[in-house]
Amino acid sequence: MRDVAIIGIGMTDFGELWNESLRSLYVRAALEAMDDAGVDHVDAMVVGCMTGGLFNGQEHLGSLMADYLGQAPVPCTRVESACASGGLALRCGIMDVASGMNDIVLCGGVEKMSDVSGAGATYALATAADQDYEGFHGATFPGLYALMATAHMHKYGTRREDLAQVAVKNHDNGLLNPHAQYRMKITVEQVINSVKVADPLNILDCSPITDGAAAVILCPLDMAKKLTKKPIVKVAATAHATDTIALHQRKDITWIGSTAAAAQRAYTMAGVKPADIDFAEVHDCFTIAEICVLEALGVVEKGQGGKATRDGVTARDGKLPVNTSGGLKSKGHPVGATGIAQVHEVVAQLRGEAGKRQLKKVRRGLAQNMGGSGGSSVVHILEVL
Amino acid sequence: MRDVAIIGIGMTDFGELWNESLRSLYVRAALEAMDDAGVDHVDAMVVGCMTGGLFNGQEHLGSLMADYLGQAPVPCTRVESACASGGLALRCGIMDVASGMNDIVLCGGVEKMSDVSGAGATYALATAADQDYEGFHGATFPGLYALMATAHMHKYGTRREDLAQVAVKNHDNGLLNPHAQYRMKITVEQVINSVKVADPLNILDCSPITDGAAAVILCPLDMAKKLTKKPIVKVAATAHATDTIALHQRKDITWIGSTAAAAQRAYTMAGVKPADIDFAEVHDCFTIAEICVLEALGVVEKGQGGKATRDGVTARDGKLPVNTSGGLKSKGHPVGATGIAQVHEVVAQLRGEAGKRQLKKVRRGLAQNMGGSGGSSVVHILEVL
Repeated sequence: MRDVAIIGIGMTDFGELWNESLRSLYVRAALEAMDDAGVDHVDAMVVGCMTGGLFNGQEHLGSLMADYLGQAPVPCTRVESACASGGLALRCGIMDVASGMNDIVLCGGVEKMSDVSGAGATYALATAADQDYEGFHGATFPGLYALMATAHMHKYGTRREDLAQVAVKNHDNGLLNPHAQYRMKITVEQVINSVKVADPLNILDCSPITDGAAAVILCPLDMAKKLTKKPIVKVAATAHATDTIALHQRKDITWIGSTAAAAQRAYTMAGVKPADIDFAEVHDCFTIAEICVLEALGVVEKGQGGKATRDGVTARDGKLPVNTSGGLKSKGHPVGATGIAQVHEVVAQLRGEAGKRQLKKVRRGLAQNMGGSGGSSVVHILEVL
Repeated sequence: MRDVAIIGIGMTDFGELWNESLRSLYVRAALEAMDDAGVDHVDAMVVGCMTGGLFNGQEHLGSLMADYLGQAPVPCTRVESACASGGLALRCGIMDVASGMNDIVLCGGVEKMSDVSGAGATYALATAADQDYEGFHGATFPGLYALMATAHMHKYGTRREDLAQVAVKNHDNGLLNPHAQYRMKITVEQVINSVKVADPLNILDCSPITDGAAAVILCPLDMAKKLTKKPIVKVAATAHATDTIALHQRKDITWIGSTAAAAQRAYTMAGVKPADIDFAEVHDCFTIAEICVLEALGVVEKGQGGKATRDGVTARDGKLPVNTSGGLKSKGHPVGATGIAQVHEVVAQLRGEAGKRQLKKVRRGLAQNMGGSGGSSVVHILEVL
């Protein structure tokens, strides 16, 4: 198995982008990544997108994106794992390079969620849940995560303020990210007093509806040293795991088993422990998600995600900075793009290119991306050489 | 790169399966393949499906299928390339095993197209075309393939009867396949006199709307010899290529460039010429498609696909038997399952398990699966050891 490096990154601004389409977003991010890597062609492509069919009436995204990037006849694979589609796209590209099948591989993620002709966002997103046992009966993701939040508060004494603090911290970070959709400071009081969505979650506990795309360029590690003069970022681990798609079939709805399983594999593959991770980008689709994910990753004790947030452990100047990009909450959450955008931030931090939100002395970062209420998770660990 | 073998195959009957759901179809085919391979667990899974979102209101198929097969937390990746989703799922599984990431990998394809709550089939299938420049303006796949047929007849003198003969031949084969949706003999006259769909294509030139699933089990070639007592089928080549998604952007709409590019790569990878292929399963979504594909594969001269069919070259007793399974036309076309079902037939023939339609002395078979009007193609070459 060949070692793999990331030699280029690109992303669009995240937001309501009224004059961009699904294809234009992908191409824009891809061209920026190719330019960053200094390559004018790729050997293969992957596109992560959750539901071009429901949002845009467009499937067959492999053909579309290879065509519009001017790269056809190169192979282009579209993968989907709900909100983890971007992370999974990266993983598929890594396998392609690792196998020796292709050398220079573009992995991009995209979603065009506003100004769409298809189904409404709530219905489209709910197709990530179990349609027969959840979606059909009216369950939506704010509702499912509200159940997880209520259970966590009951079981571990997590406070309403702890949930709010996740959003406050991530907005503090997003304020420094020029690509972020919501660059504004918010307070715990504002979160707690914002419009109720599904008790105990308010609108400021939820990530927004977003248009956007992000892309990275992969190549064999040996080749990276010849292609780029920038710091070389190595893929130390890639891992993917599943769990029951429906929330009600889990023994403990506060525990994200797919993230725990993927993280365990990733730590083994990279030969590291949770304490060896310098910073992380995690899937804060709702504030409670970030708290549960910290626990599943093993970076805090079970039940202590709320307290760790309250104590500033995950702040930019804390022991383990989490979501320096602003996270899904402030940066925005174009679902298929999110997993790649997380990796964009990790690479930018490792290369020292993160501008006003740059962390000091970081060598190893983790990106965790998940689908639905945790039915799938993808974890990557990246190291700068 | 490790060599890869196929050690198990399974498929459901194809047809209007009123008491089966998307998940039950996939699980049924997967269990049959696992049973055939003699394994009770897998290390990773892939699911090929075109549009669970539009047909069934269900995305996040990786989580769903790993869960319902009782295999979670194993990683399960959903891939999409319109009607080539099945072939692409196989290719992703091959890369997984070849890379050394996983050993025993299940690749399944599925589509539940009848009795669905979502969009109608014509709209859902048209999302494989260019939504902005074809679908939005009313183009459908019968219409696009009718343009290809008209051009082929005009340019090469292909006859209406040649198109019909593709359907007649494939129904002759499907009559001998217990899994086929339409097991009935038809005549050239019946095809020509059947209901018009898009001139010159009639209803009997078109593959049907179908529910179904198919699955195969992969492992490293070295391991295959220990796991199975059946003849070992080696993956000699896997190739994937793209073309413009929209038909109007091609220089020659009778030429399927993605199939030609993928076939060329596959022949190189396997170290063979077109003449070395003993039999093939190809993507006859419409009768004209089989004719164009024969030419793009290089097994007949450009423009001679109609004549070759007329001359019996592709019949079961011809020089190159094509679609002994009945093809998409008679066996049925549950779009995400089709690419895997083709491989199911190739493996069955290579192992000598094809019953009344068994070919004599076959050692090497090819499977060609394509998306849309040829915006993507996947080609596999399999050899029995």
